[in-house]
Amino acid sequence: MLDKFFQPKSIAVIGASRKKGKVGHAIVENLKKSFRGKIYPVNPFAQEILGLKCYKSVTEIEDKIDLAIITVKAEIVEQVLKECKKAGIRNVIIISAGFSEVGNEKLEKRIKNYVKKNKIRVIGPNCIGIYDAYSGVDTLFWSAEKTKKPEKGYVGFISQSGALGLALLDTYAERGVGISKFVSLGNKIDVDETDVMEYFFRDPSIRVISMYVESLSNGRKFMKITSSGVRKKPVVVLKAGRSEKGKKAVKSHTGAMAGDYAVYSAAFRQCGAIEAKDLEELIDFTKVLAIEREMKGNRICIVTNGGGFGIIATDQVENEGLQLAELSDGTIKTLKEILPAHAVASNPVDLTGDADSERYKHALEVVFADRNVDGVCVIALMQLAPLDKGIVEVLEECKSFGKPFVVCACGSCYTMELARKLESRGIAVYPTPHRAIKALSVLYHYGKVLRKFGKK
Amino acid sequence: MLDKFFQPKSIAVIGASRKKGKVGHAIVENLKKSFRGKIYPVNPFAQEILGLKCYKSVTEIEDKIDLAIITVKAEIVEQVLKECKKAGIRNVIIISAGFSEVGNEKLEKRIKNYVKKNKIRVIGPNCIGIYDAYSGVDTLFWSAEKTKKPEKGYVGFISQSGALGLALLDTYAERGVGISKFVSLGNKIDVDETDVMEYFFRDPSIRVISMYVESLSNGRKFMKITSSGVRKKPVVVLKAGRSEKGKKAVKSHTGAMAGDYAVYSAAFRQCGAIEAKDLEELIDFTKVLAIEREMKGNRICIVTNGGGFGIIATDQVENEGLQLAELSDGTIKTLKEILPAHAVASNPVDLTGDADSERYKHALEVVFADRNVDGVCVIALMQLAPLDKGIVEVLEECKSFGKPFVVCACGSCYTMELARKLESRGIAVYPTPHRAIKALSVLYHYGKVLRKFGKK
Repeated sequence: MLDKFFQPKSIAVIGASRKKGKVGHAIVENLKKSFRGKIYPVNPFAQEILGLKCYKSVTEIEDKIDLAIITVKAEIVEQVLKECKKAGIRNVIIISAGFSEVGNEKLEKRIKNYVKKNKIRVIGPNCIGIYDAYSGVDTLFWSAEKTKKPEKGYVGFISQSGALGLALLDTYAERGVGISKFVSLGNKIDVDETDVMEYFFRDPSIRVISMYVESLSNGRKFMKITSSGVRKKPVVVLKAGRSEKGKKAVKSHTGAMAGDYAVYSAAFRQCGAIEAKDLEELIDFTKVLAIEREMKGNRICIVTNGGGFGIIATDQVENEGLQLAELSDGTIKTLKEILPAHAVASNPVDLTGDADSERYKHALEVVFADRNVDGVCVIALMQLAPLDKGIVEVLEECKSFGKPFVVCACGSCYTMELARKLESRGIAVYPTPHRAIKALSVLYHYGKVLRKFGKK
Repeated sequence: MLDKFFQPKSIAVIGASRKKGKVGHAIVENLKKSFRGKIYPVNPFAQEILGLKCYKSVTEIEDKIDLAIITVKAEIVEQVLKECKKAGIRNVIIISAGFSEVGNEKLEKRIKNYVKKNKIRVIGPNCIGIYDAYSGVDTLFWSAEKTKKPEKGYVGFISQSGALGLALLDTYAERGVGISKFVSLGNKIDVDETDVMEYFFRDPSIRVISMYVESLSNGRKFMKITSSGVRKKPVVVLKAGRSEKGKKAVKSHTGAMAGDYAVYSAAFRQCGAIEAKDLEELIDFTKVLAIEREMKGNRICIVTNGGGFGIIATDQVENEGLQLAELSDGTIKTLKEILPAHAVASNPVDLTGDADSERYKHALEVVFADRNVDGVCVIALMQLAPLDKGIVEVLEECKSFGKPFVVCACGSCYTMELARKLESRGIAVYPTPHRAIKALSVLYHYGKVLRKFGKK
């Protein structure tokens, strides 16, 4: 049903502009770069925009239009919708703001009724629309100098807030998290999170659904769809407007009612959605769930070249309700044989500061093979002189062991360069033991969700 | 008493090496770069190291030696100490490992008794020594390609773990946190955290003391020194070995007893030390306390160009036990006058996505002047196209208002470049509202500490 939003053959941009800096200009410019279908700018006062023939009205276009993007002022959106209806357009993104979020509830209600009656599917208003890394539909007004676009990947990202969506996509690009599709929902007069989730659950390119919500349009439907969908892929959700003052702020942001947070939180738990408590958790959890699947038990082994980091990670294991794995006698015996005397051959395994990538390789082989270990946190302080770049290959090879693992690496340029390299090879890297262990904890949590709802 | 460690006129490196990659080589190399006093390598088998005349024994050096750095094997440390004693050396850093952390308690005890009896002050063993950004004393084995050194700054950093210290210094360099002095304590047979703290409290170049500890050598002394010192400067401490398994790991790391965490935590609270619960908090809290002083009340104003970020920050204000400031009628009236109709002229102040730096400037002037506001969280989504680079100057000018503030900016290269620019101008920047508000909360917490212990 939402196919035409993500896979249109033709797009009309109503309110297209010749003026650089205008939203209606940026959208045409971005679409020209990424979208392989036909683009029709609509503007009664222009002949041509960015080399494309411009139309006075959408009704004048002779082609069949799959998707219209509306960027005109709020006051004329209604008129434009009528023209879309006349032109037989069934899918519309309304970028324009100036509705319930500024107290203009009446106008919003009117266009809401109009589109419902005429069966036009609408995303928005007061949104930035869609970014589809595969089909090239891109209505976001990125600034090329100021943002990085995330690479193609496995995340389906839904955000009620446009600016937050953009800032997070930019951050995902930096942290090596690839995106499949992004939707900014805005005031949600028609398409809401549940519609998009249904679509994302069916989309094979998406492995994890990640959401920023201020309100849910239909809590019951959300729970039904989620509890059925999480068998296939995990859902991470950050709910804003938790505090009293936060709820008030939601009202003036997207015109929505934030509702009682305790109810939300309980509902998320019940339907198997994984709740992120802040933006960092949303990013961190999404990242690991895009890469790793569930962790079947909670027994963690820590392997480190810095004792202090190992201890902090150990504390965190307990803090997150996980367990430090009891390594088998065989594992400990082998570790003692292959490690130098000053290393620590028990969990947390301290390879010590003179470890090179070979020492990691041998220790990791043994640790991953231990049946008492469900997941591994590898701490690699890259800046310690003896640790060579071979660590990247060693860690990549760990993927073949078939057990979830994350990496903790903390430092400046050199460390970050190796971290990006690991991420581009599908390994989740975190700067602190705290965040790395939390990521493993989320994998365990998702394992419990799968046990509750049945894996599919 | 510790002056000779940080301000020596001459240093002997015992165990200096001609071989690149050896610790005894790296230390001489680093000292040559940064230390302006005299350097005497000691190695019975070399004539010259890195162009410096080499001595067979420290007793052969004719100059008076202020500080000896020992990097020889554990077994001959005792012998070397005797030679130091003969040469009249009173300050020694023992880098060498192989003592109680590997079960060699007897040897450690023996050298401990020896130095106590002979009044030799010792840092270590099993440590990486000292980095003093001002005097150039630098016994750390940095790898030039793998690490960034932090710039000169206001942080006095004490770490029981060497590798953790190095990784954090590297991270501080990346995050724009300047360092005055760093000490790695290791097994602490003589100099412990309280000795260094006393020294740091007196050091005018240090504004905040930041610590990673696994154990305290003398809890009572720590509390006495801290409760008296926090009147002058804040102390942030991360205690590792909180969990049962973590405590066990401490034993095999620095040979210390971690003790009961609940007791530690209560003690920290009682003596006014600010506890960080993980590495990220240690870094984040240190950063803001190196820049800002206490916040006198808990009333926060949030100014943002992204509504979603504003709501998340608002939630976090409540979560941290702070309050969203009730802006005065005058402030709201003026904000309404200077902001466009679609902006939100109440707290959180949403300048909206089309805000440029001028709009920030006008709004911030009004907000900072409001007597109902104790601290400000400025959220600036740099990647939004309308926000120009002038924002850096606008935020820098906010320092003249004399109220604490932090900045939240979240994104990739462009955002990070502006964040680094802000940090180099003495403004604390965080990537998420959560961390930004927590930093303000720490400033409020320190305000309470000052009220309890009396400001000095």
